[in-house]
Amino acid sequence: MRNRHLNIGLVGTGNVAWHLAPAFEDAGHRVVAVYGRTPKRTKEMASRLYDAEILDAPDFSGSGADIVLLAVSDDYIGEVSENVAVDNGCLLVHCSGNVNVKALWTGHTSEIGVFYPLQTFSKNKSVDFETVPFCIESSSEASAKMLVGLAESLGSEQVSEMDSNQRASLHASAVFACNFTNHLLVMSKKICEKNGVGFEMLHPLLAETINKAMEIGPENSQTGPAKRRDFQTLEKHMDLLKDMSEAQGIYKTLTESILDLYGERV
Amino acid sequence: MRNRHLNIGLVGTGNVAWHLAPAFEDAGHRVVAVYGRTPKRTKEMASRLYDAEILDAPDFSGSGADIVLLAVSDDYIGEVSENVAVDNGCLLVHCSGNVNVKALWTGHTSEIGVFYPLQTFSKNKSVDFETVPFCIESSSEASAKMLVGLAESLGSEQVSEMDSNQRASLHASAVFACNFTNHLLVMSKKICEKNGVGFEMLHPLLAETINKAMEIGPENSQTGPAKRRDFQTLEKHMDLLKDMSEAQGIYKTLTESILDLYGERV
Repeated sequence: MRNRHLNIGLVGTGNVAWHLAPAFEDAGHRVVAVYGRTPKRTKEMASRLYDAEILDAPDFSGSGADIVLLAVSDDYIGEVSENVAVDNGCLLVHCSGNVNVKALWTGHTSEIGVFYPLQTFSKNKSVDFETVPFCIESSSEASAKMLVGLAESLGSEQVSEMDSNQRASLHASAVFACNFTNHLLVMSKKICEKNGVGFEMLHPLLAETINKAMEIGPENSQTGPAKRRDFQTLEKHMDLLKDMSEAQGIYKTLTESILDLYGERV
Repeated sequence: MRNRHLNIGLVGTGNVAWHLAPAFEDAGHRVVAVYGRTPKRTKEMASRLYDAEILDAPDFSGSGADIVLLAVSDDYIGEVSENVAVDNGCLLVHCSGNVNVKALWTGHTSEIGVFYPLQTFSKNKSVDFETVPFCIESSSEASAKMLVGLAESLGSEQVSEMDSNQRASLHASAVFACNFTNHLLVMSKKICEKNGVGFEMLHPLLAETINKAMEIGPENSQTGPAKRRDFQTLEKHMDLLKDMSEAQGIYKTLTESILDLYGERV
């Protein structure tokens, strides 16, 4: 089953579809048909592909697609899966971390699944799929194998099968590790800028923080004034942030949480 | 002045002293004398050095030291600088991000300064000083030059002069970027473990988050449900975290902060 060349249908023209479509073709698959709500963008995407038909409705019957991927925003998945048409036996999947696989269960096909790449995609930045973990879920073993094979054919070195609850947890945990971390960096940069120091000075420390956390576990890597219960420094920082209420609020919440977590061990 | 070989005196046997002392000697300087509160640890450190004298009080007069470094914890700097003795003209510096240079102003010498390496040190993990930024402050131009030269002799590619307020801001901003980020990773890992998914799956996404933030700026890199005001997902996550009050509290604070920050742009 692995490395079998597949015919793929695609709904959506966002960043995920944009990067996946040519990557599929580079891996030897064929994107047979595409559908998107924005005609211009759909045409643009099709122009990157070998010979994809542009559909004016999400009707993939007769297209020869083995798989139809819904690479659309979470709140649009339900609507598309109501309206999509696929041939009998075609596998219908979505690419969302957060939406239950059952959202695809609308009677159009018995084969449904999830093909979720755990990475952040930007249109103008190329994606190295070897480093992208994929989360797979499916209604049958044969379909799961097909999706695992598809992810592996892109070069991915981390392909995991998991259910919708696990995937939702992973998604929530990614919000902490990535979206919230980025927001901390926004605050960090604001503090630097307010005081005329270069934010880029923090890059090595940040890189080491991530490496250490991944090497020995974040629970063994905590440092800083809250961890060592250095209340003098904590007060000094709170005072230093007095004109930046947003940053001060975050400082307070996270400091209290660290004090709570390690307090009992002192 | 640059690359001049210096005689160095050292107070402290913590992780910073532990890594700096042999690095100084590798760069061609000489550690002439060391003082530490723990005799065993002081002896251990001296054994890594060419010919350092072990002092039983922080009295560096007559040692020939050009610089005496206080690599001790923040709350001990004041006490040591009261008790230290150095020859006239010897430069006395501390290595703290957070303590004002004036803490060293105790009448023992007119030459005081700060030599602050912006990195996290662990005893058993070697340090590549080429990637460590140094923040320098000093009471005179000549001493500043000496400290810049000392940092550069270790191979550091980022040596910046800044005052005590700027250094304190950088330290506070490092708490956000590093200590708080690590705490988010602790939460993130807890969520993964509770739901049986592998935390290491998040590594590529985390690495990309950091790279993107440093490349195009964190203010241009924010993604996730709070940024796109996807209240359905926010609610789902809050519900998913209902048995993890610590994580839920952090989720709430950071989500509200992101909603606030980007709200006006919608």
